[in-house]
Amino acid sequence: MSGARSFGQCGSVLVTGASRGIGLQMVDSLAGGGFPPGKILATTRNPDGAKKLQDLALKHPNIHIIPLDVLSQESIDTCVEEVSRLVQEEGLNCLINNAGINVRSDFHTVTADKMVENFRTNAVAPLMITKAFLPLLKAAASRGGAAGSGSMSIQRAAVINISSQLGSVALNWGETANVKEYPYRTSKCALNMVSRCMATDLGLDGILCLAMHPGWVHTDMGGSQAPLSPEDTIPSMLSVIGGLSVKDHGSFVSFCGEVLPW
Amino acid sequence: MSGARSFGQCGSVLVTGASRGIGLQMVDSLAGGGFPPGKILATTRNPDGAKKLQDLALKHPNIHIIPLDVLSQESIDTCVEEVSRLVQEEGLNCLINNAGINVRSDFHTVTADKMVENFRTNAVAPLMITKAFLPLLKAAASRGGAAGSGSMSIQRAAVINISSQLGSVALNWGETANVKEYPYRTSKCALNMVSRCMATDLGLDGILCLAMHPGWVHTDMGGSQAPLSPEDTIPSMLSVIGGLSVKDHGSFVSFCGEVLPW
Repeated sequence: MSGARSFGQCGSVLVTGASRGIGLQMVDSLAGGGFPPGKILATTRNPDGAKKLQDLALKHPNIHIIPLDVLSQESIDTCVEEVSRLVQEEGLNCLINNAGINVRSDFHTVTADKMVENFRTNAVAPLMITKAFLPLLKAAASRGGAAGSGSMSIQRAAVINISSQLGSVALNWGETANVKEYPYRTSKCALNMVSRCMATDLGLDGILCLAMHPGWVHTDMGGSQAPLSPEDTIPSMLSVIGGLSVKDHGSFVSFCGEVLPW
Repeated sequence: MSGARSFGQCGSVLVTGASRGIGLQMVDSLAGGGFPPGKILATTRNPDGAKKLQDLALKHPNIHIIPLDVLSQESIDTCVEEVSRLVQEEGLNCLINNAGINVRSDFHTVTADKMVENFRTNAVAPLMITKAFLPLLKAAASRGGAAGSGSMSIQRAAVINISSQLGSVALNWGETANVKEYPYRTSKCALNMVSRCMATDLGLDGILCLAMHPGWVHTDMGGSQAPLSPEDTIPSMLSVIGGLSVKDHGSFVSFCGEVLPW
């Protein structure tokens, strides 16, 4: 079965930061592809301002827009309640922690507050969101899905943390070290550690967890110099995500499925 | 020349978090060894409460105790002024960012605030301290030291970030993943990225920079189960630090000099 196809056997997929960029494109591709999941839960801080996402939801009734401010525990808890009402005892199959920011600064302009701001959104929020969704992820995992109880897949339960190659310490050397973004690099590196820690804990319940590099994509965040468009990379990402199995658990992979060094 | 011996040709070494544990033992070994540096700048948040450090300073007049709250930019700036008066145009040869905390918690008990608290002290503070000491480090590096202008060493200028093997994402798997300390692991992983970013920037001025794992040491932080005593590991650490050269720049090494994976 091709990766993208397996989303068709997936009851629910939640994508954070779905109002634009990679998140919006994921929702678009999931809904418009040949094998849409049962429910697409698209979160954004401000649904009223998410015009493109609203247009998509009008076309596809399986898209549910849910407000979520990833920095607010109250907002996270309310979001979990709403998702719980939608998915009921089937639980949540796939949580994609995609929402992120880039607080650009180099060695000379970086401040403690900029470091913390980026860390809170990119590394801490995915941890707090995953903790809050744990009961729903466990519910989905315990139902076993098509893959059976001994293995792992998005049809059962998975947490995908959208990280970045810039979060690789190993790759931050020589020419690739020219991107001097202290807060962003550090936050994504921290997310990789959070992802790896969570993989150990979530694995006990049969929940797959990994970090993914989405490519340098032409979005508001990626900027106009980025060589890839969301339309290029997202189908590949979704195919990789759809095809994940226990061998990928706890790893760091690119949108092409290449394993990246920490 | 043996590593430890090279401290004897080092004008000044600054150690943060010098009131106890590894920091205190480093100051003790540096001052009491056969090859003491010209000046040992020992910082602690509360000099009045640092009885053991004060006793050491009474025995060794080259130890200068300087107050430093690593979380306060004002305190950092005041510390730099005081160090500047002490080292004058010779600058600072070796900055050892040792101060750190462990905000213990696992997946179930971790909170956003705990994550941020550990991150601020262990990853952000070393960055802000290094930024503040940059003029003094550059002054030392530009004087060239015994090693000449083309190479790197602590006799010239170096920044040593005391990290931890628990900050290695690669090693956080299988049995070694049993230590479930989300805030600490993430903060040290983030420090490794900060260290690697700084290595690229500081290297331009001939300043060596790397991250070091001090071993699991029997201290207030390491706990009573730790297999190593500070007396065992610190001489080895100092020997490794003293022998550092350009080939170690930007790396992650243990107290034995072993290269660790990120």
